[in-house]
Amino acid sequence: MKKIRAGLIGATGMVGQNYLRLLKEHPWFQVTYVAASPRSAGKKYSEAVAGRWIMDEEIPEEVADLIVGDANDVEEAKAKCDFVFSAVEMEKQAVRELEEKYAANDIPVVSNNSAHRHTEDVPMLIPEINAHHTDIIPYQQKNRGWNKGFIVVKPNCSLQSYLTPVYALIKAGYPVESLVITTLQAVSGAGYPGPASINMIDNIIPFIPGEEGKTEREPLKILGSIKNGKFVYYDALRISAHCNRVPIIDGHTACVSLKFRSAPPSLDEIIAIWNEFRAEPQELNLPSAPQPPIVYRDEEDRPQPRKDRNVGKGMAVTVGRLRECPVMDIRFVALSHNTIRGAAGGAILSAELLKAKGYLAR
Amino acid sequence: MKKIRAGLIGATGMVGQNYLRLLKEHPWFQVTYVAASPRSAGKKYSEAVAGRWIMDEEIPEEVADLIVGDANDVEEAKAKCDFVFSAVEMEKQAVRELEEKYAANDIPVVSNNSAHRHTEDVPMLIPEINAHHTDIIPYQQKNRGWNKGFIVVKPNCSLQSYLTPVYALIKAGYPVESLVITTLQAVSGAGYPGPASINMIDNIIPFIPGEEGKTEREPLKILGSIKNGKFVYYDALRISAHCNRVPIIDGHTACVSLKFRSAPPSLDEIIAIWNEFRAEPQELNLPSAPQPPIVYRDEEDRPQPRKDRNVGKGMAVTVGRLRECPVMDIRFVALSHNTIRGAAGGAILSAELLKAKGYLAR
Amino acid sequence: MKKIRAGLIGATGMVGQNYLRLLKEHPWFQVTYVAASPRSAGKKYSEAVAGRWIMDEEIPEEVADLIVGDANDVEEAKAKCDFVFSAVEMEKQAVRELEEKYAANDIPVVSNNSAHRHTEDVPMLIPEINAHHTDIIPYQQKNRGWNKGFIVVKPNCSLQSYLTPVYALIKAGYPVESLVITTLQAVSGAGYPGPASINMIDNIIPFIPGEEGKTEREPLKILGSIKNGKFVYYDALRISAHCNRVPIIDGHTACVSLKFRSAPPSLDEIIAIWNEFRAEPQELNLPSAPQPPIVYRDEEDRPQPRKDRNVGKGMAVTVGRLRECPVMDIRFVALSHNTIRGAAGGAILSAELLKAKGYLAR
Amino acid sequence: MKKIRAGLIGATGMVGQNYLRLLKEHPWFQVTYVAASPRSAGKKYSEAVAGRWIMDEEIPEEVADLIVGDANDVEEAKAKCDFVFSAVEMEKQAVRELEEKYAANDIPVVSNNSAHRHTEDVPMLIPEINAHHTDIIPYQQKNRGWNKGFIVVKPNCSLQSYLTPVYALIKAGYPVESLVITTLQAVSGAGYPGPASINMIDNIIPFIPGEEGKTEREPLKILGSIKNGKFVYYDALRISAHCNRVPIIDGHTACVSLKFRSAPPSLDEIIAIWNEFRAEPQELNLPSAPQPPIVYRDEEDRPQPRKDRNVGKGMAVTVGRLRECPVMDIRFVALSHNTIRGAAGGAILSAELLKAKGYLAR
Repeated sequence: MKKIRAGLIGATGMVGQNYLRLLKEHPWFQVTYVAASPRSAGKKYSEAVAGRWIMDEEIPEEVADLIVGDANDVEEAKAKCDFVFSAVEMEKQAVRELEEKYAANDIPVVSNNSAHRHTEDVPMLIPEINAHHTDIIPYQQKNRGWNKGFIVVKPNCSLQSYLTPVYALIKAGYPVESLVITTLQAVSGAGYPGPASINMIDNIIPFIPGEEGKTEREPLKILGSIKNGKFVYYDALRISAHCNRVPIIDGHTACVSLKFRSAPPSLDEIIAIWNEFRAEPQELNLPSAPQPPIVYRDEEDRPQPRKDRNVGKGMAVTVGRLRECPVMDIRFVALSHNTIRGAAGGAILSAELLKAKGYLAR
Repeated sequence: MKKIRAGLIGATGMVGQNYLRLLKEHPWFQVTYVAASPRSAGKKYSEAVAGRWIMDEEIPEEVADLIVGDANDVEEAKAKCDFVFSAVEMEKQAVRELEEKYAANDIPVVSNNSAHRHTEDVPMLIPEINAHHTDIIPYQQKNRGWNKGFIVVKPNCSLQSYLTPVYALIKAGYPVESLVITTLQAVSGAGYPGPASINMIDNIIPFIPGEEGKTEREPLKILGSIKNGKFVYYDALRISAHCNRVPIIDGHTACVSLKFRSAPPSLDEIIAIWNEFRAEPQELNLPSAPQPPIVYRDEEDRPQPRKDRNVGKGMAVTVGRLRECPVMDIRFVALSHNTIRGAAGGAILSAELLKAKGYLAR
Repeated sequence: MKKIRAGLIGATGMVGQNYLRLLKEHPWFQVTYVAASPRSAGKKYSEAVAGRWIMDEEIPEEVADLIVGDANDVEEAKAKCDFVFSAVEMEKQAVRELEEKYAANDIPVVSNNSAHRHTEDVPMLIPEINAHHTDIIPYQQKNRGWNKGFIVVKPNCSLQSYLTPVYALIKAGYPVESLVITTLQAVSGAGYPGPASINMIDNIIPFIPGEEGKTEREPLKILGSIKNGKFVYYDALRISAHCNRVPIIDGHTACVSLKFRSAPPSLDEIIAIWNEFRAEPQELNLPSAPQPPIVYRDEEDRPQPRKDRNVGKGMAVTVGRLRECPVMDIRFVALSHNTIRGAAGGAILSAELLKAKGYLAR
Repeated sequence: MKKIRAGLIGATGMVGQNYLRLLKEHPWFQVTYVAASPRSAGKKYSEAVAGRWIMDEEIPEEVADLIVGDANDVEEAKAKCDFVFSAVEMEKQAVRELEEKYAANDIPVVSNNSAHRHTEDVPMLIPEINAHHTDIIPYQQKNRGWNKGFIVVKPNCSLQSYLTPVYALIKAGYPVESLVITTLQAVSGAGYPGPASINMIDNIIPFIPGEEGKTEREPLKILGSIKNGKFVYYDALRISAHCNRVPIIDGHTACVSLKFRSAPPSLDEIIAIWNEFRAEPQELNLPSAPQPPIVYRDEEDRPQPRKDRNVGKGMAVTVGRLRECPVMDIRFVALSHNTIRGAAGGAILSAELLKAKGYLAR
């Protein structure tokens, strides 16, 4: 099988670097094109990121020598790749327009950016939860007069630790009424340079701009349904999120209290539901799909970021400390890797899903 | 005025060291006696803690040369001090018996230990909340046939960040139905040596043994009332606590969601209640009483441990980020210094209250 | 005594904030004027630094309401203060010219900036070492045709941990031939925001731009002499510095190996030299002079940044671990507080020295 | 090829755990036996380390069910394995005797423990430097009347960052006269639990018990030669080491100043020597041999622990910042992974060397 040619726009930033790291030796996709701002265009990728490559691993050889394109030059992208990952960092309106321009030019876009997350015909995918939301793509193309191109996005990293375990319960027949969540989020979630070390040594910051709103609202679209070619948000779940920045590199932890709409299952039943949970990515055996997607740990002091963030190559969610909640029904701790599952890795899994469903091809 | 002679049993441990640090140059109390295990007895204090003094400040000169007594030797304590602070670390039953032995021998005990926290005639004091719980002391003495001696205790450090602000609301006429709390607690709360650094670099631990139970149960006694010489727990409040250990030195932070029993006050009204809150320690102008006891910060990213833990010399509670809660009624972040307010400092304030009320004298 | 009116140019940056914190309630100086870039000019100081005040303490009340001046407007400074501290952060040439403009306008300048450190008639002061270098001021004024104005500077923070102990040995009659130094420097030394937390969690950075050169060259001027109105650098000492950034807030540590020019004193003699060392700031009893200036600790694991940086209100140097060196003669560890002794505090001490010597007056 | 059966004594401690992690799927060795104290003996390994397994990865499946033996029971070891790795933590004399008992019973011992490091007929191996020191084994066996058994040890972790680069220079014909070294060592080097987090947040400790002596003395044996069946220490090199504990998980960094015995090579020549350095492990293509063993980085801020410790699967040494030294001849920074190269990984490489040379067989 010939690999599908992947482009990456916004290739020089931290999210872009993560894409390149994770796409190294990908079985289905090959990065054949990288683009960034006009300032970087024309340089070799290794030169364009000189002094700015912040991954612990080295620049993958296969991209070091690629000549960086201008992200605004859709024609070049069209010539060099079959679809693009978007990791651009710009004003929202500019991102929206740029991603639409790619789609309009027959280039599917799988985006990390938040600009299109609440666009009514753009799916926001967590493939284990709403793989069927890709069904909106034909409507999206029709609405906009696009041919092969389309846009899909991934949600914010802060909700990926807890939403899959919560969804597993809903799917098993236990609808959830409300969630009170406190997150302890890693500094890598803030991009580069992110928080100053002087603020993160012997300190935490109990606030992340914009994060609580995203954490509370995005799940309602992800759990929503498609009606008449548009997304209808799930309206039966209320979420309250307290988001904190803590001094760890990678791994977002969420302490969750949860109230069901009716009688709650037993704790044992819940653990069984999580352990047995499988979804389309697992069934399709997508290359980046964690097997299993949810790992429940019995130890009383897990999950912990450093020990559990890399489970399933950083794509699984680890859950622990399930117990009854004196105020709501149950409570637990959930953890996922924010720069893998919560960012580039999640988007790559979405692209794999799209490929498996026939939306991406060489 | 001649200073009251304070003894300190359990003087060599971390909590004991904190007492000595905080009692340095105290206007009412002078440390005239320190006691520890038989192993340390007979040595100068500075020798007994050689290599184990972990405070950032030096050993106060006035105690460095005190000869350490045997904590089991009540006669010596009786000869050398008017009351004792208890910072002993032993099995619960042994602590109970030891503290009772002191009380039975006319030595009032102000204890940090958890052993007597739920004893039915022992008050667990946060002087801003339940200064009137000292009224049980005569019953306690009568029940047990004690003369001048008695026992009072302080609660766990984990609840001191949020309970005073919550109490301020109750006192203002807004009874609270339930709280969902997530704490981010400093390593100093675990005593010495506490968590290994290898577990606290690039990591958090979402579990602290025994802490959630204390955080949920102790407030009900503190908010309770005295009936027939015994404490009746407050039964109208449910608390759910998730307790996390995070890599900071000092300062426990709590993210709180709160539901009132009836219509909630406005956010502005709540801030006014907190800003105006004063209690007996402030009215009595006790030396360690923070003025004011609750500090509300308007900035969206406060309180922060390093910036706010020392407010009011580590005795005030700092609150911030008050906002509506989509699931309960309101939510906010509260912070207090765990080794000052939450430990030795809180106990010293209790002793000051006892002195002001005539329970302690030279 | 009426206080001398101090101005502060570059008042909104991190170093400027440190000045304000340390000058709070200063017995000799009162901050009557703050200046910054035109962008801040005209605002109240508290407004100008809103969201940028990063000290753990609050903005001192006495400066919060001062109206920020334009640092380029020397006339306003002249009207409002008797001398200025310079904490400006600009291109070197621009700093040189600005500071000279103040001096030319009768406003003495005590500067943190490195721009004039190697100017041949500008003294670089560590008051315990080269208080007599102020003798160049009349030459400086004459050379440049200045009347009351002049410029003095303080050296880099990285050398202040070890240079005073080394100087104490030289002064005691033991000239030093060479030093091999490795520093472990705090993140606050990099200004704000300084190193990204993502680079300082579970990591160190073995390089600080420009720091090794400063650490090796500046001591030679500080130890130098005045000849014909110019500084002649000390040429008999060679220094090799390895400078590392480590994840601590405050406190620069130096591991030093030292070779004397002739037979070395005994270790006991060296400790005695350090313990007995006093210099002009101590003799003049300057308000910020640490008493004593050098503290030797016997414990085998000291000095440590968190425990020793605040000794002498952050103005003393703490030394420990003196032992023989198998390659050079002796070795030891030295520590000082980089944002107090090494920055604003050191400059304030210099200003106190200048006042005591009659160079500053109301 | 049938795998050689490896035993592990001291299997439950932190070093033992690292062995198991690194021996997982080893191409030549299979862990068939684990032993520990009598307290653990008789339990399944997974039970024996329950609550004490501190690796980030899980217990390898192939050892989880092994029944732990009593480390004192040599007969059981003899029945179950062909040689042992020793990771025991006991008094030196007890370790010496235990390891000798294994050797006397035909069980070769590859030890992490320091007890036999200076035994005159026991080789202390860094396979890239002194692979030929295995030639002493026949003398050792003859001296002691052993048949197939023998003892080899690995040196301390603190010297493995810099000794291979220094040796590469010596081997290339540039003998070294002296080294002044300052190390910044990770907390994992202290074993478990190691330093308390309260001492390692916002702090460093400029002292590690016993470490400087090991760092200064062990290299002289490693660089030494065999004369009459005994080791003669290299006497032409003087080393001064300052050892610091810093708050990082893994990776020891050394800042090195070096003086040659005669005219130094150029910096370019040194880099070429390092880049081209290969030794017996590389020539024999041992499974754990890093290819190449020394990596020189051109960036001015490398090596850094988090970015460089895993190079060559944690077995390579990364060097950077080579520059002239104003006091000695040259200086540079070197880094290696202390729990891989510096501990279990280094010992595994030694065992591979022994196997390749015919000293270990099934």
